[in-house]
Amino acid sequence: MISKNQSKLLRALQRKKYRREYRQFLVEGEKSVLELLASGWPLVQLFASEDFLQKYASLVAGFPEKITQATANELTQAGTLASNQSALAIAKIPEEKPLIPASGEWLLALDQINDPGNLGTILRIADWYGISKVICSPATADLYNPKVIAASKGSFLRVQVSYQHLEPFLQTLPGKNPVLGAFLEGESIHQLQLADPDQGGVLVMGSEAQGISPGVAALITRKITIPAFGQAESLNVGVATAIICDNLKRLAKA
Amino acid sequence: MISKNQSKLLRALQRKKYRREYRQFLVEGEKSVLELLASGWPLVQLFASEDFLQKYASLVAGFPEKITQATANELTQAGTLASNQSALAIAKIPEEKPLIPASGEWLLALDQINDPGNLGTILRIADWYGISKVICSPATADLYNPKVIAASKGSFLRVQVSYQHLEPFLQTLPGKNPVLGAFLEGESIHQLQLADPDQGGVLVMGSEAQGISPGVAALITRKITIPAFGQAESLNVGVATAIICDNLKRLAKA
Repeated sequence: MISKNQSKLLRALQRKKYRREYRQFLVEGEKSVLELLASGWPLVQLFASEDFLQKYASLVAGFPEKITQATANELTQAGTLASNQSALAIAKIPEEKPLIPASGEWLLALDQINDPGNLGTILRIADWYGISKVICSPATADLYNPKVIAASKGSFLRVQVSYQHLEPFLQTLPGKNPVLGAFLEGESIHQLQLADPDQGGVLVMGSEAQGISPGVAALITRKITIPAFGQAESLNVGVATAIICDNLKRLAKA
Repeated sequence: MISKNQSKLLRALQRKKYRREYRQFLVEGEKSVLELLASGWPLVQLFASEDFLQKYASLVAGFPEKITQATANELTQAGTLASNQSALAIAKIPEEKPLIPASGEWLLALDQINDPGNLGTILRIADWYGISKVICSPATADLYNPKVIAASKGSFLRVQVSYQHLEPFLQTLPGKNPVLGAFLEGESIHQLQLADPDQGGVLVMGSEAQGISPGVAALITRKITIPAFGQAESLNVGVATAIICDNLKRLAKA
C-alpha cells in the first residue's frame, strides 16, 4: 500500500520545483520501469503491482527495502498516466556531466522546444539515430518532466542531455564542424552534400511557433530545409527532427 | 452566448456515435477554424469570441445566421481543447467519395492506427508530401474525432480519407504498382531503388503495438525498414511515416 507520505512525495515530483529540490523523478509504466531497472540507473523507490513483482522477481530481488506493493488503482492515482497497472519508480537525478563533443560525432541542439511530448519524442529519435548528446537551451522543457520521460520510451537512459545557453556552446565548438539549422527556407536536405561525411557537426532545431532564435540563427553555418511536395504549412518539430536526422545519417553513416 | 441545446450538441459531437448520426463534427481553435472557413467546406455553426468576429469580419460576413458570439470561457467549456479563446465550428461530414488512385500517384494505407493523435499527425505529413489519398482500415481512429482534426492542423481539408478493408483494396489495385510495407526487418529505405520512379504505389503502415496485420502483410510486395544507428527499439508511427515518405519523395519526386 502506498502511504500518505509516499503519495505526497509522488505528487510533489510531478512539479519541477520539487524534482530539483529532491533530485528525484518519476518513471512510469511497465516498459519504462523495466528499462530503468535493467540499466542500473540509481533507484530510490519502486511501487509495483503483485503481478509485476512476481513476473520480474529476479530483477527486483536485490532491493526489497525499496519496494512497495500497490494496486492498479493506487498506481494510477499516484502517477500521471491515464492508467498504470504495473509499476512506478522514483529514480535519482544524476549530477549533470560536462557534455564534450567527440570528433566525428553529430549533436542535436534544441532551441526552446517547450512541449514535453516533443522533447521526449526527440530523445527517442536521437537514440534511434545514434545521437547520444543533446544540448537544450534553458527554456527547453525539463528532461525529468513525467511527460518527457514517458514519450522518450526509455531513451532518456541512453541520451545525455545538457542544459546550457546555445550561443556560447556553439561559439566554442572545436574545429570547423558544420552547424546546421532547420529553417523553412534553406538548402534542401535531399540535395545536401557534406564536405566530409565523417566530420560530424551540430543540428539545431527551433520551436514550431518561434523557429530558431536570432542569436542562435547567427551562428548557423548552413540553413537547411525539408522540401515540401504538398500544401501543409509546417511539420511538427519532432517529425522534422526525425526527417533531418535520417538524411544526415544517410549521408554521414558515422 | 451558447444556449443549452447548442452546448448539448457540442458535447454530443465529441462522440463518434453522434457524429455519425448528425453527420457533423467539431473544428476547434483559431487556425483550424480559419482554414475551414477559407476552404469553403460546408459550415453548420460558428461559435466565436468578439475579437475573432471583429478580426475576421469580412470572412464571416456571409452567414450571420450561423454565428453565435461566445466568451473564451464558454468556448473552452464547450470544446475539447485545454483552452480556446477564439473559435469553434460545427462542420458537415461530407459523403464519402470513392477513392480512385491516379496513375503515378503514391497512396498511404493505414492498418489499425487507433491513436487519434497519430492519425492527425499522419494526415499532416501526407499533406506535406503531396499524398492526397489515405485508405484507413475500419479499426483506424475516426477522422472526425476532435483530436484527429486538431493534430492534422487543417490537413483534413486537403487529404481524402477512405475507410475500407485493406485486403480487397490492395487486391484490386490496377497495374503493377509496388505495395511497400514498413517492417522492423526489410530493405533499408536508404538503399531503396524504385524500378520506375514515376510509377507510384502504396505505402502501408501498421500500428506500433501490432505492426501490419497478417492478411495485409501477405499483400506487401516489398518490405522496407528505417535503418537504426542507435539503441531505441522503435519509432512512433507518425515519425516513421514521415521518414519513409521523405525517402520515397526523394526517389520519386512525382
